[in-house]
Amino acid sequence: MKNYRDLCIDLLQERGVSLHSIAEVARYLQAEYHENLQAEQFYSSIYSVLDKREVQFAVMVAIEMDMQAENRNLFNKELEEILLRDEPLFGVDEVNAYGITNLYGSIALTNFGYIDKFKYGIISEINARGKDGSECHTFLDDVVGAIAAAAASRFAHGYHKKDEPFEE
Amino acid sequence: MKNYRDLCIDLLQERGVSLHSIAEVARYLQAEYHENLQAEQFYSSIYSVLDKREVQFAVMVAIEMDMQAENRNLFNKELEEILLRDEPLFGVDEVNAYGITNLYGSIALTNFGYIDKFKYGIISEINARGKDGSECHTFLDDVVGAIAAAAASRFAHGYHKKDEPFEE
Amino acid sequence: MKNYRDLCIDLLQERGVSLHSIAEVARYLQAEYHENLQAEQFYSSIYSVLDKREVQFAVMVAIEMDMQAENRNLFNKELEEILLRDEPLFGVDEVNAYGITNLYGSIALTNFGYIDKFKYGIISEINARGKDGSECHTFLDDVVGAIAAAAASRFAHGYHKKDEPFEE
Amino acid sequence: MKNYRDLCIDLLQERGVSLHSIAEVARYLQAEYHENLQAEQFYSSIYSVLDKREVQFAVMVAIEMDMQAENRNLFNKELEEILLRDEPLFGVDEVNAYGITNLYGSIALTNFGYIDKFKYGIISEINARGKDGSECHTFLDDVVGAIAAAAASRFAHGYHKKDEPFEE
Repeated sequence: MKNYRDLCIDLLQERGVSLHSIAEVARYLQAEYHENLQAEQFYSSIYSVLDKREVQFAVMVAIEMDMQAENRNLFNKELEEILLRDEPLFGVDEVNAYGITNLYGSIALTNFGYIDKFKYGIISEINARGKDGSECHTFLDDVVGAIAAAAASRFAHGYHKKDEPFEE
Repeated sequence: MKNYRDLCIDLLQERGVSLHSIAEVARYLQAEYHENLQAEQFYSSIYSVLDKREVQFAVMVAIEMDMQAENRNLFNKELEEILLRDEPLFGVDEVNAYGITNLYGSIALTNFGYIDKFKYGIISEINARGKDGSECHTFLDDVVGAIAAAAASRFAHGYHKKDEPFEE
Repeated sequence: MKNYRDLCIDLLQERGVSLHSIAEVARYLQAEYHENLQAEQFYSSIYSVLDKREVQFAVMVAIEMDMQAENRNLFNKELEEILLRDEPLFGVDEVNAYGITNLYGSIALTNFGYIDKFKYGIISEINARGKDGSECHTFLDDVVGAIAAAAASRFAHGYHKKDEPFEE
Repeated sequence: MKNYRDLCIDLLQERGVSLHSIAEVARYLQAEYHENLQAEQFYSSIYSVLDKREVQFAVMVAIEMDMQAENRNLFNKELEEILLRDEPLFGVDEVNAYGITNLYGSIALTNFGYIDKFKYGIISEINARGKDGSECHTFLDDVVGAIAAAAASRFAHGYHKKDEPFEE
């Protein structure tokens, strides 16, 4: 049986988000503090974030809601409309993402706020794909930003130094 | 067109939760501080809580997820299993509810934590109905607790005194 | 007797922060959504934010801690050192500010994260004044950012339209 | 040089809070899920919680604020009054404690809410000592509850199984 972490990695992949693209956002968030940072240096932090149960469940719920809306499958058609037009005052998508960032302290939360407003890399791409109407990524861009922010915070706190050497 | 607040009230009703039953939980949370409190004294606070957009969206998402699971309608069958057995370490249901309680300050959050653990009234009922397998209320009990906790906090802060007289 | 709101306004003023400078940060946060926004349009939202008791208490604690450190008055000298050097991984200053932003929903929190990282206007000024060692504003910049983010969120939700005409 | 964790343990001790008394609260929070739980089984989780920097800083700030108030040392006399009478709507004390519980997920937060309302063991003792006017523990009871709630949540998630054998 696949574990929940691998299930989440597959789900993210199916929705167009590679681990590398998340690592690239994490790198961007830490770039001002270190020279010559590489996205690869965040891989182990991203794996570590995705190992937490509450993170896995937040990812699953986010992708499920997006897919339900995309397939016009919701019971609540008003909610479906809100999700499909990515209503800026919706808020539940960000609250779901806080379930991830909270676990990594206040730096993760400020990083998340920053990346949520100043969309970078994959977050900008997902967001754009959700705007044309055929796809829905209302929840996804927030959990991706949250995972990147959490990984950047973990890196800033120096936990990566204690990591086992990374193997994919 | 129905507004979102009335839509939420109808959705709650369809899932077996009356406004009065939520008011009764709010009353219970404040009972030690006031003599002879009546559930009716919390009606205007509950309406006020349900008037906030982020509250409405949290309620809609909660009930949608429960109904999707109950109807075995989820794309993600692992997630469906987790929701149907009301996994105690799930956490996303509580995080969604924090989107409500956060708006009402720290008293709302401690009230929510208390009522989430010491289930009372309708929260105990919903919870029990979710355990027999035919219904799913994994998200609902948390938003109901959060609305009651928010209303109790608003009452404690004395905002009800500034209210217009209540009319249903 | 002075009320707590006016006490906070005076305290902010004494620490070098005018209401106008906070309004200017709030304006900046909303500038991409409205043309020709003026800082003055945020005055009533800032007053409204400062009317909340939990906001007032967060402001008072923030300024008290900064002044205690600045005057080398702390019992805990290790903590004094941390505050005086504005340790980036401290975190308590941001957590204290969340007590303000949480009350205004998820937009307030992302706005806060953004402004905390991309320092603008008075936040950049306070921060710079805290770096030369004679002044300490470790907590202050976060509550100022939080008040601006909360006011911007209130504005975005359209509550300012329901306001009484502003009078200072 | 003493590390921050040991500094916090000493500060807690000086304010009348032993690690054992916190472990006893954590045990109480998990008692319904396990038979014959002993407070000692939570020691390693409490050490692990106290190893996190943001926890250490929250503890230091809490105790500093209490001691400043107790010694009538605050610049802001209105704030001093609020702290000395342990104003129930203060809120900053709980927000500071959320900086601890957030790191341990939603179970920690509900546990904290429960124990904050249904005071048990050392939390009840601290609270009582703060009411007679000579001592101030307005912030302390919340961080103690938060550490216990965090340790109970860590235990519930099974992390203690991965721990090194405990040594004091």
